[in-house]
Amino acid sequence: MKAIVTIMLKDGVLDPQGEAVRHALSGLGFAGVNGVRQGKVIELDLDGVDQPEDEVRRMCEKLLANTVIEKYRIEIE
Amino acid sequence: MKAIVTIMLKDGVLDPQGEAVRHALSGLGFAGVNGVRQGKVIELDLDGVDQPEDEVRRMCEKLLANTVIEKYRIEIE
Repeated sequence: MKAIVTIMLKDGVLDPQGEAVRHALSGLGFAGVNGVRQGKVIELDLDGVDQPEDEVRRMCEKLLANTVIEKYRIEIE
Repeated sequence: MKAIVTIMLKDGVLDPQGEAVRHALSGLGFAGVNGVRQGKVIELDLDGVDQPEDEVRRMCEKLLANTVIEKYRIEIE
């Protein structure tokens, strides 16, 4: 079973990495890019886990995400 | 219009960052995690772009992804 966790900075938190990408795209001549946010995606290969969504949520709270400034989304496949 | 680019290391390319996460999860007592791969997600806020998927593909090839070792997926919302 695969779990995909997408972690993004919360709205309102400055994202200098995304801003650097936006600036670089603009410098390369790509127009029409109003904003860029960059985050992380973590693919977990799980085996024999009951209630995987709850378990992955615990992983996020304990290790994967910094919930002060980051939000996360969990998909189970 | 929003474009979401997910960039992962290609299969077969070693992912030390993912391996560190797997090891840390195991150390915290999370069992049943066989493997972890970590990648990037980039959300682009686009405006007035014709054929956004083609344009975002060009951004990936030129800047966002290192296509020697990384693969990418584009979703347009």
